[in-house]
Amino acid sequence: MFNPVQLQMLRLISEAGPLSRTELAGRTGMSKAAVSLLTRELLDGGLLAETETVRGTGRPSIRLGLLGSSAHFVGVSLVEAPVVMVLTDLNGKLLGRHEIDWSNDASEVGRLIAAGLPALTAGRANVAGVGVALSGYVDPSQTRCLKSTLLGWQDVPAASLMEAEIGLPTAIENDAKAVALGERLFGAIRDKGSFSLISVGDGIGCGHIINGRLYRGSHGGAGEIAHATIEPDGLPCRCGKRGCLDTVASLMAIQSSARTAGLPGDVKALEQLASNGHGEAIAILHRAGAALGLAIAQIIQIIDPERIIVTHRHGALDGLYGTVTRATIEANVLPRIAGEIDIQFRHVSADIWARGAASIAADKFLSNPVLHQKDVV
Amino acid sequence: MFNPVQLQMLRLISEAGPLSRTELAGRTGMSKAAVSLLTRELLDGGLLAETETVRGTGRPSIRLGLLGSSAHFVGVSLVEAPVVMVLTDLNGKLLGRHEIDWSNDASEVGRLIAAGLPALTAGRANVAGVGVALSGYVDPSQTRCLKSTLLGWQDVPAASLMEAEIGLPTAIENDAKAVALGERLFGAIRDKGSFSLISVGDGIGCGHIINGRLYRGSHGGAGEIAHATIEPDGLPCRCGKRGCLDTVASLMAIQSSARTAGLPGDVKALEQLASNGHGEAIAILHRAGAALGLAIAQIIQIIDPERIIVTHRHGALDGLYGTVTRATIEANVLPRIAGEIDIQFRHVSADIWARGAASIAADKFLSNPVLHQKDVV
Repeated sequence: MFNPVQLQMLRLISEAGPLSRTELAGRTGMSKAAVSLLTRELLDGGLLAETETVRGTGRPSIRLGLLGSSAHFVGVSLVEAPVVMVLTDLNGKLLGRHEIDWSNDASEVGRLIAAGLPALTAGRANVAGVGVALSGYVDPSQTRCLKSTLLGWQDVPAASLMEAEIGLPTAIENDAKAVALGERLFGAIRDKGSFSLISVGDGIGCGHIINGRLYRGSHGGAGEIAHATIEPDGLPCRCGKRGCLDTVASLMAIQSSARTAGLPGDVKALEQLASNGHGEAIAILHRAGAALGLAIAQIIQIIDPERIIVTHRHGALDGLYGTVTRATIEANVLPRIAGEIDIQFRHVSADIWARGAASIAADKFLSNPVLHQKDVV
Repeated sequence: MFNPVQLQMLRLISEAGPLSRTELAGRTGMSKAAVSLLTRELLDGGLLAETETVRGTGRPSIRLGLLGSSAHFVGVSLVEAPVVMVLTDLNGKLLGRHEIDWSNDASEVGRLIAAGLPALTAGRANVAGVGVALSGYVDPSQTRCLKSTLLGWQDVPAASLMEAEIGLPTAIENDAKAVALGERLFGAIRDKGSFSLISVGDGIGCGHIINGRLYRGSHGGAGEIAHATIEPDGLPCRCGKRGCLDTVASLMAIQSSARTAGLPGDVKALEQLASNGHGEAIAILHRAGAALGLAIAQIIQIIDPERIIVTHRHGALDGLYGTVTRATIEANVLPRIAGEIDIQFRHVSADIWARGAASIAADKFLSNPVLHQKDVV
């Protein structure tokens, strides 16, 4: 059992990379003597290692880094077929990748994951946990899926069902929240304390990092922008209300509008038509971008994140859709901050969900390293 | 200088009320021996006191509470005339109230506050700081007012100008954010870790408490819902864009619409007309409630707070405006959570801003008790 200051030190090093004892003292407000004692236990526990020597004007100081191999994590993307599994270390380094079949039966998913573990881990021990990313609404304990249209689940204790088959601590998480945490713990933006990540795909998801941690809201519903009303009295939505963002801006909604207009449903083909001046194609993409941009502007007015990251696949936001999104954001935030907002559009591959899922397991580990340290038999 | 665990203990006791050493050990994850050592320093420093003895089955245990008189705080409401000043202790107990003249010159405000201090404090020492709540956009350091329409300020270093006159650490804060923090530190909802407070008055403000702390966003802009676009292509707003919540739901906007329609601008009179079936009065109040309700629904979809508190004065939300607001919230959140959301409408008096302002000073004190402990000469 490590104390809260030691856990804070692990987090600081996870975010900033290796730190010296003096740097840790500065960032935690503890004395250098206390830091030496507390880090000694973390070194002895195999979580930290002396990784680099910094030579300055005085005595050289040694930086302490997370010992990547102290724990490994399995991340599973239950978002599309085939299901991708990855193995990472505590620093988020990718050590393995494996594909398994799709299933929407939680126990069967557990069996498929268990069967895939030997090929994935290739004999590595210290697998501390499994994270599974899925499209749906997950409860605050990251164990029950309260609702997933894609999986056809309603209040399914999915993590427990999987864990019974896998024999390792297993957590589930909404796909966009997993990706947001993955960027924070393992990604290029570990230094940002607060950002919102919006994922555009068949559906639309959103995860917030606030004060360095994944912010799930009080019922797990933070970031449910897919069902924010963006067009009052708009199209009926499968959730029961009208005018949800999901009804006009998701790739499924775009596809549906395109087909109704007798156009190809693929967003690339639609963008091509729009760039040739096809009025209906332009209208569909404009409407999607206006809705997504307005939803993101609301996020900015409501929580003022340091950065907005919009992830998309297959270049869905490379054309008019993305242009309108960006223009609409800037037109709908306080004019004094428009133009100064840090908005990034990023192409991602399917593996990003699996990596995000692994970060969910790593986050649980960092909150309680001893409890989660187990070996794969 | 207290260490971070000691500061965490002060916060825990501020939120929960007096706690025993065993309870503190349980909540911080520290050993009982460490808790005894750390609390001893806080007792010696005059921040904690042994307040109650709890008799159970075993040995009676002693609870430690904040020593209210260890620090006093001045809160000033620079929101309307007359300007209200209050004095509180560290537990938020109201010890004094004084009114001073209105000014929009920051140095003059500082002089007026300084002149009012003797009457307010009545000889009490240990005044650790001053907080000033104002209508406007305040920077992350709570020292510069970046923009206040009411005060006519643009990038004014208001806290420093006032502090130079007062001679005590002085911080400024947006009025709604100050009220939200006041409810968290001093109010009836200290137990809620995450809530959003929306204040309806001449303007509309919002403050979020997230994981127990005031969340200001990365530029101080979190909660700027007054300028969220609620009616795309709606009325022009003084901020430069169109359709802001402020243009239809603030009491100023309602007054303006009423006058244009040749009706009385007072919301009470308008509610009376509406209850008698006056179509134009009904339309104005409906529009205001629909806009406010939609903005609150966006907050719920985006950050999923534990509770929504809507504060209003003079019973502004007691009639149709409030009814439409509530109905619109429920119609625009995920149907599975509609009806389960904890929404409270609360009448408040002008003093709530001053108390919130005092909590800003108390919050700074709790983050660094030694630095802020000074006496009024």
